[in-house]
Amino acid sequence: MSTTPEQNFAALGLTLPPAPVPMGVYKPCLIVDSKYLYVSGHGPLLEDKTLITGRVGVDLDTDQGKLAARQVGLAILATVRGYLGSLDKVKRVIKTLGMVGCPHDFGQHPYVINGCSELFAQVWGPDNGIGVRSAVGMGSLPGNIPVEIEVLFELH
Amino acid sequence: MSTTPEQNFAALGLTLPPAPVPMGVYKPCLIVDSKYLYVSGHGPLLEDKTLITGRVGVDLDTDQGKLAARQVGLAILATVRGYLGSLDKVKRVIKTLGMVGCPHDFGQHPYVINGCSELFAQVWGPDNGIGVRSAVGMGSLPGNIPVEIEVLFELH
Amino acid sequence: MSTTPEQNFAALGLTLPPAPVPMGVYKPCLIVDSKYLYVSGHGPLLEDKTLITGRVGVDLDTDQGKLAARQVGLAILATVRGYLGSLDKVKRVIKTLGMVGCPHDFGQHPYVINGCSELFAQVWGPDNGIGVRSAVGMGSLPGNIPVEIEVLFELH
Repeated sequence: MSTTPEQNFAALGLTLPPAPVPMGVYKPCLIVDSKYLYVSGHGPLLEDKTLITGRVGVDLDTDQGKLAARQVGLAILATVRGYLGSLDKVKRVIKTLGMVGCPHDFGQHPYVINGCSELFAQVWGPDNGIGVRSAVGMGSLPGNIPVEIEVLFELH
Repeated sequence: MSTTPEQNFAALGLTLPPAPVPMGVYKPCLIVDSKYLYVSGHGPLLEDKTLITGRVGVDLDTDQGKLAARQVGLAILATVRGYLGSLDKVKRVIKTLGMVGCPHDFGQHPYVINGCSELFAQVWGPDNGIGVRSAVGMGSLPGNIPVEIEVLFELH
Repeated sequence: MSTTPEQNFAALGLTLPPAPVPMGVYKPCLIVDSKYLYVSGHGPLLEDKTLITGRVGVDLDTDQGKLAARQVGLAILATVRGYLGSLDKVKRVIKTLGMVGCPHDFGQHPYVINGCSELFAQVWGPDNGIGVRSAVGMGSLPGNIPVEIEVLFELH
């Protein structure tokens, strides 16, 4: 007997931040063709509604960057659960674009973005929870956040 | 009685630049499965076929950056109308990737990209005209343009 | 009588690197709805399994950058053939995101990314082999690679 994504998330003992409010003219997420959930770029929103800030490799070390990416993943889960009612309505992760704010000589983007990808793999499992991905370094990110991530999910 | 996207655009009193010619080996836009219109990254093309250049936060201030993003939106509308014949054939905005050319300490990407997103919201309305979005800062953009934007639309 | 993508590729006299192994928690590619192949961001993997490194405009000149982009294209072909068994199962290129590692004053991203796009056009032809595209400059890329490219293909 397998567990559900909601059960998997509960077993992690993590707390979701409040679902983030858009900082501009966009929707947090959107359903296409009744089965694809597009999710806007999210930042590392904390439970107190503030954002982690700073550049990875300057203000945050690589492991702090990975924790920030996990926090982005939690903010995405908050948006998904807030919109769909349950993480169980998501079948799998299709695609992730992981964007790291860091100087030009930083090179460990995959390690940092794993903070989000490992969370998704724990929630939806080692097959459905892992999709395609690009993990890259941006010149800058809104409000000096260290990580921004957008995702495309497939729904049941 | 609601107005059409073409009527909404006409009411804005704005002028479209000529539909941009590709600067490389790509198509300006492409239809998938008869109902999704993928649009290539566009720059801020002016009516005289030149591009706005410079970095936001250095050569352009934030409001000039927002105007450049609106100009990118107009170039996208020119591509869409040139390809489909009418803006009315687009049902809604699904996804926007807004990329700002700016130094690493710039942080107002959402405000800048709103220049394009507000235009789309005026043309297709406050629900269909607003999709998911990421607004981020690039290390550099082709020909030193301040903003590049790619979009995915859904067709009727 | 037209030639097949596999025949077109063979005629180029190029050699594929081994299909790359993921550097993080992601899949190299993924099929959606039985007809779309999403491909993760790939780097310029060589036949000896090392990656070309350096920034375009600093360590590599523009033509070396274009060759690096072609090598990324070859790595993508290796992933596609390794997963599907044949390049002939791909119908067309839908979308490419071409990301160049370079300093902020570099501006020839479309020329660089053409290294990949021209390869795809040779393999799948001047219509099906050319899709929509954005070609942009990143602040940094994993392991200091000069080019990273992700693609969406449509299958037969």
